[in-house]
Order: sequence, then structure tokens, then C-alpha cells
Amino acid sequence: MALASAFAYHEPMSQDPASLGARFILTREAIEAMAGAEKVHFLNANGRRTNKSLGDATGLTGFGIHLIEIPPGADSTEYHVHYQEDECVYVLAGQARVTLDEQPFDLGPGDFVGLPAGGPAHVFHNPGPDVLRCLVVGGRLAHDVADYPRLGKRLYRNEGTWNLVDLANVTDPKAAPGSRVGSK
Amino acid sequence: MALASAFAYHEPMSQDPASLGARFILTREAIEAMAGAEKVHFLNANGRRTNKSLGDATGLTGFGIHLIEIPPGADSTEYHVHYQEDECVYVLAGQARVTLDEQPFDLGPGDFVGLPAGGPAHVFHNPGPDVLRCLVVGGRLAHDVADYPRLGKRLYRNEGTWNLVDLANVTDPKAAPGSRVGSK
Amino acid sequence: MALASAFAYHEPMSQDPASLGARFILTREAIEAMAGAEKVHFLNANGRRTNKSLGDATGLTGFGIHLIEIPPGADSTEYHVHYQEDECVYVLAGQARVTLDEQPFDLGPGDFVGLPAGGPAHVFHNPGPDVLRCLVVGGRLAHDVADYPRLGKRLYRNEGTWNLVDLANVTDPKAAPGSRVGSK
Amino acid sequence: MALASAFAYHEPMSQDPASLGARFILTREAIEAMAGAEKVHFLNANGRRTNKSLGDATGLTGFGIHLIEIPPGADSTEYHVHYQEDECVYVLAGQARVTLDEQPFDLGPGDFVGLPAGGPAHVFHNPGPDVLRCLVVGGRLAHDVADYPRLGKRLYRNEGTWNLVDLANVTDPKAAPGSRVGSK
Repeated sequence: MALASAFAYHEPMSQDPASLGARFILTREAIEAMAGAEKVHFLNANGRRTNKSLGDATGLTGFGIHLIEIPPGADSTEYHVHYQEDECVYVLAGQARVTLDEQPFDLGPGDFVGLPAGGPAHVFHNPGPDVLRCLVVGGRLAHDVADYPRLGKRLYRNEGTWNLVDLANVTDPKAAPGSRVGSK
Repeated sequence: MALASAFAYHEPMSQDPASLGARFILTREAIEAMAGAEKVHFLNANGRRTNKSLGDATGLTGFGIHLIEIPPGADSTEYHVHYQEDECVYVLAGQARVTLDEQPFDLGPGDFVGLPAGGPAHVFHNPGPDVLRCLVVGGRLAHDVADYPRLGKRLYRNEGTWNLVDLANVTDPKAAPGSRVGSK
Repeated sequence: MALASAFAYHEPMSQDPASLGARFILTREAIEAMAGAEKVHFLNANGRRTNKSLGDATGLTGFGIHLIEIPPGADSTEYHVHYQEDECVYVLAGQARVTLDEQPFDLGPGDFVGLPAGGPAHVFHNPGPDVLRCLVVGGRLAHDVADYPRLGKRLYRNEGTWNLVDLANVTDPKAAPGSRVGSK
Repeated sequence: MALASAFAYHEPMSQDPASLGARFILTREAIEAMAGAEKVHFLNANGRRTNKSLGDATGLTGFGIHLIEIPPGADSTEYHVHYQEDECVYVLAGQARVTLDEQPFDLGPGDFVGLPAGGPAHVFHNPGPDVLRCLVVGGRLAHDVADYPRLGKRLYRNEGTWNLVDLANVTDPKAAPGSRVGSK
């Protein structure tokens, strides 16, 4: 059929329900059984979490979605803010303390935090005795800029390349007296 | 400070914790109290859900994240597949039956379905006696193409404009004999 | 050096000036000697041009730049308008008649026409006795929509896939009475 | 007509040919009469040119196209390389000396240089007695990174914000021993 090729709309992927389900469905039991990646943030040794990327496991590329587990006393990452990418967190189990622009807030299961690009700066901490489990969703843009305000660092990410600089080294050519810089 | 202007990195948004929390945090109670939008799919009168956009409520624009509630017997949408945008569903409560490329699968709380752009086609149904509650995340790209295979329809979305056509009316200029079409 | 890898900034590509020049420079003589692709528009048999893609020849991908030659009596393409991609034409030699929204204008060497996305519809014609030579620059976006108003056709281009439909078959779901369609 | 609204395809913009032509056509005489912007590069006091943006004047936004005039003895800009944006130059009149990865090449009318993102580094100079006139086309991406290799500087451009840093201050977190950094 001419249409079939128009958008390469696949023929049904499989007549075998088991293989179709295995590819796109992660049951609660399967998620629990996932090994997860043990991650330590490169700028915060206490930023320790187990990361199960549900999106990667089912072939998503447009955004990241992860079930993360933060042990008692640990942080999610280093306190930061993204300028291009949105992020959000939905608490599934345990206690969380989120810091937003240096203000602390206590959260529990069913609570949601939306973190639009540009602010506020944020970090999550597990203040409780049990593992903190959250769903985390984040953009996966080709280009992002993020600040680590407590460390005075800025990170530029461009198509897989990461550049970390000191904020004190950054200058704005447009702010120079008499500047005439402009786009091509 | 010169740096402050470099990326318009905001000064802390508020010294008032209550207003900062109100802007970016939705507690479980706040989510329950949200009115939600009652949506009926434009191509399926039984595609009926209450839609609470957690992302819209906190200022996210890069992707959509929604807590949806599907009443017993209803569908999420019309059976469809996106060619550009990823989508995923995490079941919070109730029973779900998802159809993937015309194969049914039963799901419960804690189960996850990843729906990468390009396939499989899918629709969710609530086969149970209770409300089905899910978190749904979807891309928000400027451009997408989606098919409704059971209806023979194709939808083009380009920067807010929606065009619905019959798949039978679509032709591929590149497939014409002797075609020399190409990019500028 | 750590920096060298930061953005994969190449070491100087060659110590051999001849190979460096051959890769990025097209002299006037080299352009004249290029074979060029003989293109006939898929919707207009009189849309006949020789197309020398200067950009393709030097590795450009972000936009297209072409030296085109239109023989006496021929058109550049079929009368059309792009909704996403910009386009422009700079006349190098010969005579041109451009039609903008069905109004004709005569052009000669050194004249420029800018064709922003969204309008006006346009086509070029060579009314003169000599070959018409122009530089043509066009966007190369992943997604575009174009209309051929004289033919009642619309073309959707999405990441290399082309779909041609009859404008009479296109409907707007948002325009339906009582429509509640919306983004995810 | 339903179609008219589908992509907001404009009704013909004007029944008045004069106003339609004035908006989208720049004749040779009109271009000569344009004042042009006198630009001096923010990192090279000898980078001096008159810049007539043909694209801006006709409403193009997807790429920049400029007729530039460089006086005898002046440079186009500071020697640089873009990592995301393509650029190209077509010589209309005068003499040009382009330096590609520190190799000089002499150019004249009708010669073309393609400068794909990533390399080579380049700058143009007018070695002759007459004004050098060129058409310059450049990408207008939301995000770009550029290096000024002779100055040891890197420029990050993100949605209108410019950040200039010393290359010596840039580090790559991925290159750290034992690094586990990765995307969300």
C-alpha cells in the first residue's frame, strides 16, 4: 500500500504478545528487579542515587524519565538550575526535603515539584529513615546551560559536549561600553 | 555583579517561602483539589478523561505531565501513534488495559508503558470498577505527525496548527516513477 | 591538551594548502565547471533548472545555497509558498520575472528577493533570451509545510518524508463546533 | 473556506503591486542606497565592515544574508570557528584573502567559500586597493559555540545571551578520572 511507506508506518511490530509487551511495558515487578545505575554527582560526593531509566529501557529519546532511589541522608544532585531544560519530580515513597532558591520544603508521597527552565535553583535531600523513591522527568535538549550557584560554576552542554567554567571567568560582550555585537 | 546579567540568572525569586512553594510545589492534597479539565477525544466519544496538568500548573513548557483520571469503561483517547513525539504512562491506581498494535495487556499500579515515537500504536482503557489514575508524560514538539489507524486518518501538527487528512488521500512524491525531488 | 577535546576543536585540518583549499573553496572557474543537477519540478514540467549546490559541495548542512541556471522560457519551480522555511534569490545574470501573490515583477542582475516563511507565494520565470543565473538560499529545516495554490495541493515534509495531499481533503479539528482538542 | 484557516494561508497580501514589491524586493539600486550598519568586531578593532542585511530588510529570520563591504586593509571579523552554525561567502567585487586554519588563499569575484560548523577557523581580509564586496550567509541558530583561537577565547551563545570565557578556564567533567556524568 502506498500509504504504508508514506511515514514508514510500521506493520504491526509483532504477532507475539509476549515480545511486544516485553519491549514497551515495565511491570512494577520488572522495575523493582532492574539493577539501576549507582550515580554519584560529579560535583557533590553526597549526591548519591540509584537510577532506573524507565525511558531508556523502553526506547524513549525525547525526554528522560527515571525512577530514582535516594538513601537516607543523601542528596539527589548538587544544588543547580537549568536555563533551557525543564525538570519535575513526583514523590512515590519516603520523605523528601527540597531546597528551592535556598528555602527548604518538606514533601511526601503524592507531592509534585515542577522546575521550569530558568529557576528556581534546587536540590532534593532524603531527611528520613527510609529510602526516598521518586519519578523524575527531565528534558533532553541538544543544548543546555546550568549553574551550580553554591560552587560558582556554570556548565554548558552542547550536543554531548560538556564544558564547565568558573562563573567568575564569564563575561558578557554585549555589556561592554559601546558594544555593537549582534547576530549574523 | 557582571555575572548576574550573563544568563539573567534570577536573584532568589522570593524571600517568602509560602509564595515560592505555592508556585512550584503541588502537594498531594492540592492535586486532589485541582478541578481538572474534562476532555473528550475529538475522534472518540468514549475517550473521556479528567486531565490535571501538573506541568502547566507549575510553568513547565518543554514537555507535558498530567495526572489523568479515566472513569470505568472509558478510553484514554483514540487508538493512535505519534511519529515525532514520545509518550509514556505510569499507573498510580486502578486497572488499565493497554492495546499495543492491537494486542491487549492488563496493567495495575506501579506498571509503566513507554511509547516511543514511531510505534506501537496504542490506546488505554479502564476495564475495572474504579477510577484509573495515571501519570502521563508527553513531548511538546513544534512539529508532529500522528496516525489514527482504525479510522484511516492522519494528523499533522505544526506550531499550533492542526491538519487532519484521510490516509487514502496521501501520496508520496518521492515514490513516483522517475522522481527527482529533493531538498533545497 | 584538555581543551582540545572539550569541543573536539580540530587540530588544523591540513598542512597542505592545496587540499584545504580544495575542500572549502570553489573558484569561479570551478563553479563553472561543475556539472550541476538537471532538475524538473515534480509538479511543473516547465520548472527546469540546472542546480549547482555550492553548499553541498563544501559540506554545509544548516541551509542550502545553490547557483541555479534557468533556460529561456523556463520556470524555477511550481508556484508555491513555504510555511516554515525562508528562501531568497539574488540575481547574478540574465532577466527574471518573479510572480509574488500573482503579481509579476521584472528583475535583473544585482536584484534580491526575500521570501519569508508564510508568504508571499512565488515562482521565477526566465522571460529573456539568455540563461538566468541566480544564487538561491533556502532553509533546511526538519519540518516544513508548503502549498501549491494553483494546483490545490499541500506538501508536508517531516524528516525526509514527503506527504502530498489535496487541500480540499484537509480539515482543522480545532475549528469543529465544541472542539476541545489541545496539546498533551 | 475551511482551508484558508488551516495554515493561515494568507489571502493575497496586496492588490497593490508597488507595496508588494517594496516589501519583498530589493533592487540593485535600493541595495546601493541602503545605509548599512558600520560594524567593528568586539575582539578585533581592524574587523571593520559595512553590513547591509538583505534578509532583515525583507523579513527573513531563519538565516542571515548580508551584503558586506570591507574597506582596503580591513578584516571581516576576528579569526574564529563556529561549532553549530554554518557560514559561507560569495565574492561579488574586489579582492579577498581568506585564511583557513592559518593558511592564506586569494579570492576574486565569483569565488565561493563554504564554512561548515566545526571548521576550518577563518577570517577574511581585503588586501586590495578597492572595496571588497561579498554576500555572506550564516545560520541563525538559537545555540552556538565559537572559538577565537588566536585569543584563547570561547563564546557561548544561547537564545540571545552571550558568554565569553577563557579557553584555559574550560574543563570537561566527562574527562575526569572515574567520571560517571551522564544525561538525565
